[in-house]
Amino acid sequence: MTTIIAVDIGGTQMRAASYTQDRLQPIKQKKIPTLASEPGGMDRLTRVIEDVWPNGNSVAAIGLGSPGPLDSHTGYLLAPPNNPEWHNFPLAPSVASRFGVRTYLDNDANLAGLAEYRFGAGKGHHNVLYITVSTGIGAGVIIDDRLLQGYHGLAAELGHVIVDPDGPPCSCGFNGHLESFSSGPAIVRYVLGELDSGARSILKRDESLNARDVAEAAQQGDALAIKAYQRAGEYLGIGVASFLHAFDPSIVIFGGGVSQVGDLLFDSFHVSLKQRVFHPRYLEGLVITKAQLGDNAGLLGARALAEMKAGLAF
Amino acid sequence: MTTIIAVDIGGTQMRAASYTQDRLQPIKQKKIPTLASEPGGMDRLTRVIEDVWPNGNSVAAIGLGSPGPLDSHTGYLLAPPNNPEWHNFPLAPSVASRFGVRTYLDNDANLAGLAEYRFGAGKGHHNVLYITVSTGIGAGVIIDDRLLQGYHGLAAELGHVIVDPDGPPCSCGFNGHLESFSSGPAIVRYVLGELDSGARSILKRDESLNARDVAEAAQQGDALAIKAYQRAGEYLGIGVASFLHAFDPSIVIFGGGVSQVGDLLFDSFHVSLKQRVFHPRYLEGLVITKAQLGDNAGLLGARALAEMKAGLAF
Repeated sequence: MTTIIAVDIGGTQMRAASYTQDRLQPIKQKKIPTLASEPGGMDRLTRVIEDVWPNGNSVAAIGLGSPGPLDSHTGYLLAPPNNPEWHNFPLAPSVASRFGVRTYLDNDANLAGLAEYRFGAGKGHHNVLYITVSTGIGAGVIIDDRLLQGYHGLAAELGHVIVDPDGPPCSCGFNGHLESFSSGPAIVRYVLGELDSGARSILKRDESLNARDVAEAAQQGDALAIKAYQRAGEYLGIGVASFLHAFDPSIVIFGGGVSQVGDLLFDSFHVSLKQRVFHPRYLEGLVITKAQLGDNAGLLGARALAEMKAGLAF
Repeated sequence: MTTIIAVDIGGTQMRAASYTQDRLQPIKQKKIPTLASEPGGMDRLTRVIEDVWPNGNSVAAIGLGSPGPLDSHTGYLLAPPNNPEWHNFPLAPSVASRFGVRTYLDNDANLAGLAEYRFGAGKGHHNVLYITVSTGIGAGVIIDDRLLQGYHGLAAELGHVIVDPDGPPCSCGFNGHLESFSSGPAIVRYVLGELDSGARSILKRDESLNARDVAEAAQQGDALAIKAYQRAGEYLGIGVASFLHAFDPSIVIFGGGVSQVGDLLFDSFHVSLKQRVFHPRYLEGLVITKAQLGDNAGLLGARALAEMKAGLAF
């Protein structure tokens, strides 16, 4: 039977699984620490693939997911965070050559979007906008049943769309990106700034303060914490309004840890989105919903990528 | 021989042409006044199509272009400016039914982009971003050789992407869109605002002041006029940086009257774009150029749409 191997190379864990095409559940799976900053990454990747290699079956394709930036056309990693060994590294070609199997690479957000489109909240939709709101903001865009990748394989970096040219610095070093307003660290930075300006809050200035702490304070009624999430939701609405004007999808799917807080973020998001969409028709029949696949999105996306690129089942 | 009819319904003129597939030049063409605000638009459209109907040949498909907003999937005009008769009007279905020929509709900017991709500056590229800077700002986006239309047929409205949430009002009534910073009227509005604030200039506060007057003053060295175009170019660079992050094209093509001023707009555009693109790889091999088809882009785009949708030659 035709099998496919998928690997999701995360910041802390490297997860691998093998699949037959008829089932969503893997036939084998394994996870090991990524240890990004330690040498030997290629050996670890090789071993975890061997560990899930299906007994007696041929493997038709291998799909790999990793944080970007990366070139999905050539399969090169460009500059993965905390991993000097893999700068400008031919990841997919190396795996293809080691195993003699066609191997494809794309970034984690694109693959989570592809997975939600194929197996999750986006099933049945042809134009899908997936947005993950977490430490960063990433996106995956499906247009007419095809994954948007772009000329350099760098499309759909929607966390780095500029929503205010004079806005705060983003993790990437540039200013005013959606990520610099609505990601977890952006929410924390806003709270710290307000505390420095003398705002009253049960939150204290603390190096380890994170977006979850702010959410907990908000749930206890802390006005500053509530405002921090409202502001993030408002900018998220501004960004998504622009994305509707650009892509006109039939569904917007939210994943990522920060989006788990629910109404705290999304009440102001919905108000802002409605205020900013410039023609009501964009909202007709538009579904706005949560991701369904959770931690499996990365693996299932890498699997879907391999199936799609190898011409299987798409 | 298979022929195609194209109609470009502009604000002032309605242009029609018939084409054989082997040639870029029309076999017949005709133009008449649009007279958008006067009744009888459907009669005028019918007549101009009859005028270019090829003798003795069958017509395989008809393509129509019009200002938006419109629904390219159903062929309905939604709310064309100054034309109450055609609000929520089934334009393509009416033409299809009148002539018994498959008829397709899309907006003028999408079609100009499609024409440049197929016959003009974008030939040979697979991922094209076309932007027209004129009274408004419109766009046409080609992704992997397909025209981006979206779920409601309303995609690629890039003039209405929000570049500053607190920015000036756009022609559509919403605030801070790219069009409200970099279109012809936005340049004029900036000059008028600065004159009201006491700025010195050879330009005078005048109801009839237009972007061409400002360009002429700039060419004479007027500091305010130069600054008005520089500011428009700077925001255009901010917008296009975001569009690269979103679409990652291999070519950006500029059309429209305002873009004809050249360096006056594009010097600051290029500086701003380079400052704002968050990874240098987006610019590797990226072509930034002028549209080639001029006034024929609308007709050739309507022709390309008909060919594409009818499954001819794409």
